[in-house]
Amino acid sequence: MKNGIISEDFRKKLHTIIYEADTKAGRFFDLALLAIILISVVAVMLESVASIKIRYGYELAVIEWIVTIFFTLEYIARLIAVKQPLKYALSFYGLIDLLATLPKYVGLLFPGTGFFIAIRAIRFLRIFRILKLTHFVGASNQLVVALRTSRAKIAVFLFCVLVICTILGTIMYMIEGPEHGFTSIPVSIYWTIVTLTTVGFGDITPTTPLGQLVSVVIMILGYGIIAVPTGLVTAELMRGEKKVNLNTQVCPNCSADKHRDDAKYCYRCGHSLHE
Amino acid sequence: MKNGIISEDFRKKLHTIIYEADTKAGRFFDLALLAIILISVVAVMLESVASIKIRYGYELAVIEWIVTIFFTLEYIARLIAVKQPLKYALSFYGLIDLLATLPKYVGLLFPGTGFFIAIRAIRFLRIFRILKLTHFVGASNQLVVALRTSRAKIAVFLFCVLVICTILGTIMYMIEGPEHGFTSIPVSIYWTIVTLTTVGFGDITPTTPLGQLVSVVIMILGYGIIAVPTGLVTAELMRGEKKVNLNTQVCPNCSADKHRDDAKYCYRCGHSLHE
Amino acid sequence: MKNGIISEDFRKKLHTIIYEADTKAGRFFDLALLAIILISVVAVMLESVASIKIRYGYELAVIEWIVTIFFTLEYIARLIAVKQPLKYALSFYGLIDLLATLPKYVGLLFPGTGFFIAIRAIRFLRIFRILKLTHFVGASNQLVVALRTSRAKIAVFLFCVLVICTILGTIMYMIEGPEHGFTSIPVSIYWTIVTLTTVGFGDITPTTPLGQLVSVVIMILGYGIIAVPTGLVTAELMRGEKKVNLNTQVCPNCSADKHRDDAKYCYRCGHSLHE
Amino acid sequence: MKNGIISEDFRKKLHTIIYEADTKAGRFFDLALLAIILISVVAVMLESVASIKIRYGYELAVIEWIVTIFFTLEYIARLIAVKQPLKYALSFYGLIDLLATLPKYVGLLFPGTGFFIAIRAIRFLRIFRILKLTHFVGASNQLVVALRTSRAKIAVFLFCVLVICTILGTIMYMIEGPEHGFTSIPVSIYWTIVTLTTVGFGDITPTTPLGQLVSVVIMILGYGIIAVPTGLVTAELMRGEKKVNLNTQVCPNCSADKHRDDAKYCYRCGHSLHE
Repeated sequence: MKNGIISEDFRKKLHTIIYEADTKAGRFFDLALLAIILISVVAVMLESVASIKIRYGYELAVIEWIVTIFFTLEYIARLIAVKQPLKYALSFYGLIDLLATLPKYVGLLFPGTGFFIAIRAIRFLRIFRILKLTHFVGASNQLVVALRTSRAKIAVFLFCVLVICTILGTIMYMIEGPEHGFTSIPVSIYWTIVTLTTVGFGDITPTTPLGQLVSVVIMILGYGIIAVPTGLVTAELMRGEKKVNLNTQVCPNCSADKHRDDAKYCYRCGHSLHE
Repeated sequence: MKNGIISEDFRKKLHTIIYEADTKAGRFFDLALLAIILISVVAVMLESVASIKIRYGYELAVIEWIVTIFFTLEYIARLIAVKQPLKYALSFYGLIDLLATLPKYVGLLFPGTGFFIAIRAIRFLRIFRILKLTHFVGASNQLVVALRTSRAKIAVFLFCVLVICTILGTIMYMIEGPEHGFTSIPVSIYWTIVTLTTVGFGDITPTTPLGQLVSVVIMILGYGIIAVPTGLVTAELMRGEKKVNLNTQVCPNCSADKHRDDAKYCYRCGHSLHE
Repeated sequence: MKNGIISEDFRKKLHTIIYEADTKAGRFFDLALLAIILISVVAVMLESVASIKIRYGYELAVIEWIVTIFFTLEYIARLIAVKQPLKYALSFYGLIDLLATLPKYVGLLFPGTGFFIAIRAIRFLRIFRILKLTHFVGASNQLVVALRTSRAKIAVFLFCVLVICTILGTIMYMIEGPEHGFTSIPVSIYWTIVTLTTVGFGDITPTTPLGQLVSVVIMILGYGIIAVPTGLVTAELMRGEKKVNLNTQVCPNCSADKHRDDAKYCYRCGHSLHE
Repeated sequence: MKNGIISEDFRKKLHTIIYEADTKAGRFFDLALLAIILISVVAVMLESVASIKIRYGYELAVIEWIVTIFFTLEYIARLIAVKQPLKYALSFYGLIDLLATLPKYVGLLFPGTGFFIAIRAIRFLRIFRILKLTHFVGASNQLVVALRTSRAKIAVFLFCVLVICTILGTIMYMIEGPEHGFTSIPVSIYWTIVTLTTVGFGDITPTTPLGQLVSVVIMILGYGIIAVPTGLVTAELMRGEKKVNLNTQVCPNCSADKHRDDAKYCYRCGHSLHE
């Protein structure tokens, strides 16, 4: 039905502008979008500052409305631009884009913003669209690859860290006990992680000599095993040199992105990319 | 005597289920076991939270009993499944498995749980069985290898760190002295380690200019030498690429595990693995 | 006009002394300059210490004057030494050198130092001239190269860190709320960064169980992703081995420095370096 | 004169025992020595704990005396064992060995221990002799080599860190000012280093929004540039694989140690090592 109203050409032009960052128009659109996303994020932040909300509450409300309307139009445009709107609507970014606009309208029906800040915060996720900007794609891909390939090792590492923290936390609980701030095992596990990761808030600190001895062990441990994730990622990064370049084109059919520069057809749905 | 009652076939089947994660049954058993271990761990934790213990004390006690009984049955099954029960009983995991069940029963004879939480915490160690899950073995082995091969270097490093902390701690004790919270050399060594490892609780902080100068040195030092363990592990990880794959089979005779995928006989007792 | 008064030879000799660290005189000049810069920096620092300012205010004022006069003479000498004084005057270091002398004189006209400490702090930047000392050039170049080549990746990394902190900070704000010290989203983003970077001041700490759970996630995250920049830089450093040696010669025409050891002509203006 | 009284054979045997860790006797001597050093260190520590000193003051004094006497005898033995006692006496370890014994005697003449703890702490340095133990030499050498070769780069790095801290510290002083705990530039530089190194004591914390913004920059910076020393050391460690093995032999003439395993003559004085 859509194709009836909107000409193919228009659809394709729209697609190039909205979904790709390779053309001049596309890059401009992305940057404009980012600017607006950032504005909306900043607005949400400032609104949380009591003093500012009192003085500039009205201005912030106006900005909020402008942003919301823009996002709504953008969302509709995105639906029009892809061949299979549903696929996009149900994709990760599709849902985020929707959630970035809805709450404001819902907020009209049911006042009481407390909960809607939560939803509006989802808007922040849209920022990740910046990674589509061509001169970042390469870098981000490489990072993602490095992290993905060392996923199993990192999982094992994190798992061991957590188990160690559980055990040491329990020990600390038995040594220091509630009277020294280690009110329960979960709390002293929390403390152990705070210490192992070398964050060290200092809200809870060991006071018994034995407790200090154990926490020294925890610190040295944390200071030492940080080497492991670093080693893993480094090793990956140095292996993962020769990688194919992916570009920001998006399949006009199923909106799959990250195609190889030399790709002719979508790797997911096989649809031609240069129709 | 055992072999009299229990048929060889049953023993072997049991062995495959309990000790190996390669078969469907084996994997299911491992996952079920893990679930129960996690439940018991969580139960021990929650019991330590005063408010929860008051409200759900009874439920937690029930869970505790169910878990204990399961562990007991499992322990017996393990004893039956191996050819040489004694070897298993005296192995590291064998002892942990025993300690995971006993305390509850001992607790019946001598009430007074304080000490038995300690023992029950040992149960946490059972979690490490998760590393038997096939898709982790490779990763964990590699990590272990990397750490083991750079053991000597790490020892030297830790040793130097400790000596440096001892010396700097003594210096800080002489500079700041008890009146500024550095009540004794051990305490100021503790503080030095807290600082060197960049944890920085802030419960004790230098107040004299000279003390602050020395602690700046300590921080820069700690900030810099963290590079050493990282460098060591990374170097190891990048050398330790070409490694043989080990699987989760366990020798039916001496319960040695981590056999090479292509192993026909146990590397420890020479017993056939495909009997 | 300048060339009229000052002989070419003198200009060249001056140029060698002031701008290059390869000759004995040049090295001596650099070291002397550094000594004076350090003195001036220390003076500015001490002046900020109330007790010291009261007791040694006069001495500090004198030192300040001596340093300022030296800097003025040096600045004039630098203007004379280069063929195109304007190019130097408008170069980064040229402006710093000017700003290192002016404020004192301006201070005479408009008393009220508060603001001028700020300007005088700029003097600290002059310290970076030390990197011209021959035995550092190589090292610093290599570092700069490593950082520059992994610039894009680091940018992506920092960007992701900031976005993650924004999102997690907002979540923490909604969990803990103003009553627990998370007075606004910006503040809890600040707290999130303090935690993620494992700094952990402890001025604000989560008190609700859920808040502590989220902060544990933040810490583990921060503890883990520190691996990324490390991996990037390491990978770069290990690739960037074969680099050309750059020396401290400065083009007598356009004051471009960091020429290849085998350079005959300035890479920027093509002017001969061995005129 | 010495050679008159003491036979060459005895001297050589003594030399092998005291200075080398390759023979059984030598290794035993080293371990015994280490045990005593550790005892003395622990004694010094415990003595600083008020409660312990009151209860066990006498026992500690006795231990102190025994250790001192042992060290004295050892020192004399070392003097006898080497051909050129003076060279040893003036060597780094020679002086430490002397300072490890003297203070106690001097303490007899001039009572008032406060200062002598300081000297006695020097004793801790003797612990480094442990690195002579054969199975550590390799590892420690490699670390030392890695650190030495990347010395210049580390220097540049530390220098930049310090300059950055100086500048940012001054900026923080101007933003926050004395009223928020940043009492002077040196203090706020101290705070900046505490923050940049991710230690974060929390005794001083920024309170103004601008101050918090700058400290966020400092943290991100510190979180990022820690990558540099790590990268340097890693790169070194991975290059510095093929290294000659050094052993623990010590030249009987000039007490130079760390000779190549295949060395026939002392690299410093050319004296034969297998005389």
